Amino acid sequence: MKLSPDIRDSATLKFSELAKEKNRRKEKIISLGIGEPMFDTPPEIVEATYDAMKKGYTKYSDPLGLVELRELIKDKLLKDNGIDVSIDNIVVTPGAKQALSLALMALLEPNDEVINITPCYVSYIPQIKIAEPSAVIHNIDLDKHDHSLDRGKIKKAFNKKTKAIIINSPHNPTGKMLERDEIGFLARLVKGTGCYVVSDEIYEKLNFSGMRHYSIGAVKEIKDKAITINGFSKAFSMTGWRIGYLAAPKELIKAISRLQQHLNTNTCTFIQKGACSAFSLNEDYPKAYNSALKERESLLVEMVKSNSALRLVRPAGGLFAFLDISGASHGSDRFSARLLDRKNVAVIPGVSFGENWDDHVRISLVAQTDEFREGMRRIDEFVRSEDGP
Amino acid sequence: MKLSPDIRDSATLKFSELAKEKNRRKEKIISLGIGEPMFDTPPEIVEATYDAMKKGYTKYSDPLGLVELRELIKDKLLKDNGIDVSIDNIVVTPGAKQALSLALMALLEPNDEVINITPCYVSYIPQIKIAEPSAVIHNIDLDKHDHSLDRGKIKKAFNKKTKAIIINSPHNPTGKMLERDEIGFLARLVKGTGCYVVSDEIYEKLNFSGMRHYSIGAVKEIKDKAITINGFSKAFSMTGWRIGYLAAPKELIKAISRLQQHLNTNTCTFIQKGACSAFSLNEDYPKAYNSALKERESLLVEMVKSNSALRLVRPAGGLFAFLDISGASHGSDRFSARLLDRKNVAVIPGVSFGENWDDHVRISLVAQTDEFREGMRRIDEFVRSEDGP
Repeated sequence: MKLSPDIRDSATLKFSELAKEKNRRKEKIISLGIGEPMFDTPPEIVEATYDAMKKGYTKYSDPLGLVELRELIKDKLLKDNGIDVSIDNIVVTPGAKQALSLALMALLEPNDEVINITPCYVSYIPQIKIAEPSAVIHNIDLDKHDHSLDRGKIKKAFNKKTKAIIINSPHNPTGKMLERDEIGFLARLVKGTGCYVVSDEIYEKLNFSGMRHYSIGAVKEIKDKAITINGFSKAFSMTGWRIGYLAAPKELIKAISRLQQHLNTNTCTFIQKGACSAFSLNEDYPKAYNSALKERESLLVEMVKSNSALRLVRPAGGLFAFLDISGASHGSDRFSARLLDRKNVAVIPGVSFGENWDDHVRISLVAQTDEFREGMRRIDEFVRSEDGP
Repeated sequence: MKLSPDIRDSATLKFSELAKEKNRRKEKIISLGIGEPMFDTPPEIVEATYDAMKKGYTKYSDPLGLVELRELIKDKLLKDNGIDVSIDNIVVTPGAKQALSLALMALLEPNDEVINITPCYVSYIPQIKIAEPSAVIHNIDLDKHDHSLDRGKIKKAFNKKTKAIIINSPHNPTGKMLERDEIGFLARLVKGTGCYVVSDEIYEKLNFSGMRHYSIGAVKEIKDKAITINGFSKAFSMTGWRIGYLAAPKELIKAISRLQQHLNTNTCTFIQKGACSAFSLNEDYPKAYNSALKERESLLVEMVKSNSALRLVRPAGGLFAFLDISGASHGSDRFSARLLDRKNVAVIPGVSFGENWDDHVRISLVAQTDEFREGMRRIDEFVRSEDGP
């Protein structure tokens, strides 16, 4: 493929590498950068995975995934999300990222158009370009004042060539969760057209606002137009495991299955088996973690309230908040670099998530509360200093 | 991407699914179909992987792979293969298949040409098309009488647009190992040109002829033109684990690293750590398995000698032999389907590996020796029967 030069290194990973480098030089960094939970994978899943290895789940599996796991995912999608699919609609993939990529590869043909809501996860745009270099991407910004969908601009961009709309809720980097009303708007928009909604719901279980999570795949009228992406990484702290899944209409599964066979063969077999045990964990399992996220979010809100140069649309779920630094900064790259240099605090520049978001930085809520509190103190001090942003 | 309709389901997997279906119906199938060793992954690797899970190797890793693992791979490539690279040339991938795919994605631009030696592994051609739909593929058949490279045809197909030549030794499906002379020919061909040699060496350790394994990456004059693909699946019976690697010139690593970040993030972290332990296993480790493969190959040779309708170029390594059925058949699909139906023996039609190889079937050597012997008896009987192929 022709790799356009704007398929850049993933900026989030790059920054976290920089922070790690400072750490290696024994400078203590407060990393508010990377997006993975810091708790351990539940031991039940570790033990089930070990057991699977010993029982010989070390050979190839069905490319779509173990039937047992797909049954559990099917039940989960119905129970948690109201998405009613059969196991033949489900593909287990090496990570939710790979699920999104396979879906886009299966969907996009030359000159298709894609509506992408910005700011967005750093890999969406590169993944679209990898899947189809000629795809036309319409990046539609969230409203800067309340992070609502800009329905007017979405409608305007939507046309007969629109093959996909990518949504993500809870959202990286803003923490926004789509409202019922917004899901309804998108459903009405694509109903009866050739356009699919690709819904990345990887942060579903990380929800510290108590707001209800809506899945567009549950809207019966457009069931054949919804692709749901989810996985185990964020809910169960299994980022390094690389296991995710998608649920898609049958007409797409054949292409996705072929791509999976020729690119991946299958997702690691004993990891699939181990992941089955995640469904037997106590339902209250993510509550304690969400309380901790909430605690940090409150510290952030408190700091922002006391600093007139900063502004925040409060996040509802996920692992991040998107801090508006427009009152303080000369650009998010400069802000982040100087914050790291002067105060040893790592955040991610907003411009990594969309070209119009250079007046924001992403703050991860995963650091331990004491460390996070100190991070807030340093950001506040940094913004107020003469020699600041 | 525009998925051309000839990106078919991987035929090997499909056939093995058919065989499994018969198994479910309690019909005992002798599967000479699929290509994975049947022994268990060495327990040392299983335990090291479990240990890594418990020690928290459950988070993201460097996209290129753990430094510790890349150091071990670097040493292995130098010691076993004479390939002298740094760890910055090495990328650990979710399977050797994915390594090949990332390499092709990084290499190929619109209208580039690829020389592909046929018969070939069923995923090569789809992977080329996924990487670059407009690539022009020149499939050059091995000589049917001795499986040597057809140097005349390769030279004729080679031109300024040739970006890659894909080779595979030990070879799937023929078991051929490239001779020193053939490696030299290819090296001279690409030297000083813009063409790379992508060398899939996944079957390296499965060598029952004692023939020396040559790596083109060891040829100093074209070091900057060689991409070596290898992994753990076949040598250590880790097919279901999905871990492989590539070594490539620096100029390609940046693009491969970006693709890895946006498609995979990284290869499962604890599996990488567990794979490190493979390098401490006894060097004699594959000997017993190679003896068993040799035993089965001898049974095949014996059967072919006694059946005048069959012919065989003896395999030297890998897991397969490619049986010439031209004296017996009306096409390899029909041969394979009828053999499965009449005799409950599963083999893979040669046409899956190249359009000119419909007069061959692939025989896997992995079945237990007694089962393999019975398989040979049934094939012989089938070929001789009135109501046969």
